[in-house]
Amino acid sequence: MTTASEIAREGTLRAARRETARTALLNATAGILSEATQIEASLSEISRRSGVNSAMIKYYFGDKQGLLMALLEREAEREMSGLDALVAMDVSAERKMTIHVEGIVNAYYRSPYLNRLVHYMVEAGGPEASARVSDMFITPMMAAYRQIVAQGVREGTMVDVDPALLYYALVGAADHIFFAAYSVPTTLGVAKVDVGIKQAYATLLRDLFLRGLRPDKD
Amino acid sequence: MTTASEIAREGTLRAARRETARTALLNATAGILSEATQIEASLSEISRRSGVNSAMIKYYFGDKQGLLMALLEREAEREMSGLDALVAMDVSAERKMTIHVEGIVNAYYRSPYLNRLVHYMVEAGGPEASARVSDMFITPMMAAYRQIVAQGVREGTMVDVDPALLYYALVGAADHIFFAAYSVPTTLGVAKVDVGIKQAYATLLRDLFLRGLRPDKD
Repeated sequence: MTTASEIAREGTLRAARRETARTALLNATAGILSEATQIEASLSEISRRSGVNSAMIKYYFGDKQGLLMALLEREAEREMSGLDALVAMDVSAERKMTIHVEGIVNAYYRSPYLNRLVHYMVEAGGPEASARVSDMFITPMMAAYRQIVAQGVREGTMVDVDPALLYYALVGAADHIFFAAYSVPTTLGVAKVDVGIKQAYATLLRDLFLRGLRPDKD
Repeated sequence: MTTASEIAREGTLRAARRETARTALLNATAGILSEATQIEASLSEISRRSGVNSAMIKYYFGDKQGLLMALLEREAEREMSGLDALVAMDVSAERKMTIHVEGIVNAYYRSPYLNRLVHYMVEAGGPEASARVSDMFITPMMAAYRQIVAQGVREGTMVDVDPALLYYALVGAADHIFFAAYSVPTTLGVAKVDVGIKQAYATLLRDLFLRGLRPDKD
């Protein structure tokens, strides 16, 4: 005889298994993209790494585009909830900018495929994918920058810069050392960006975006 | 009867025609790439735009990869000779940085495909193409940055920043507004970056990279 609580437990287990397979597929895809220089991940490789049958990709995500969009959404949720919390913190605008610069460099260090995946989804996915990517990443970041800059202007530590231009400058700078990873042996004389270089880069960007935005004293 | 001077003149005309067809092919490819969001230019479209038979692409450049590499070399020659002249100028390091920031934003505004083409050649072309791209762009830019920063340190206007990190920050920032052109309607509320936005962006980057690199006064 099956009780109501057994049915409920069975449902919870199914949901947990579903979540595990889904997460395993997303983690495997993130791993593959982190090692690649392009957005190239074969279904068989994702299946092999995750230990999940490739038929389940169709079941959970529809197709590979759906899987990639889900990966992007997972990243966006993580980064954007952090950004919301940052904006709401009771600290100075310069402190918020410092934390954000470090956060964005860390995000690209951890997921070097992030900007490439955004670009790929927009290119390959058409207007609907473009709109989703905008809603996920660009609109919340613009809103956060607008608030941080307004606070900095009130505190006398920032000029009234267009948040959109600030967005391009900061995201472009933070991403490029990871995007152009092929050039790191030539420029820095090492095989790849390590944690020390990542930290030095975050420090440089912090200096550029804090000092560079301060109003003239005279 | 054919005189020596007629033979020479015929040779000059042939060279001129060759140069014209070659230039027409390069210009057509640059035009197509400027309008595209990816490195996609079909041989038939290049032929149609240039008015040059597509068989001539094989004759002049070997294949499409050869044509794209020749386009990149043409851009590199233009930009790098300007950079050499800049480094040699008898002006302050801050003035050189100002001119360079404006120059690099203008280069991406004029040829928005430039960074994408660099990336594409490295991805599609293998180690040999990577090495050529490094020799063309990265090595000369690194050398220029090293000299400008050393001068700025002597003049007391710049901290002793790693030229490689400066390179990634500046190139990444300058490129991103053009690379991520799909997002401009969302961020700036206009269809595309116009000359006014381009100029405002160059001014922001100049401020970031001049003020941001200045040593502490205290």
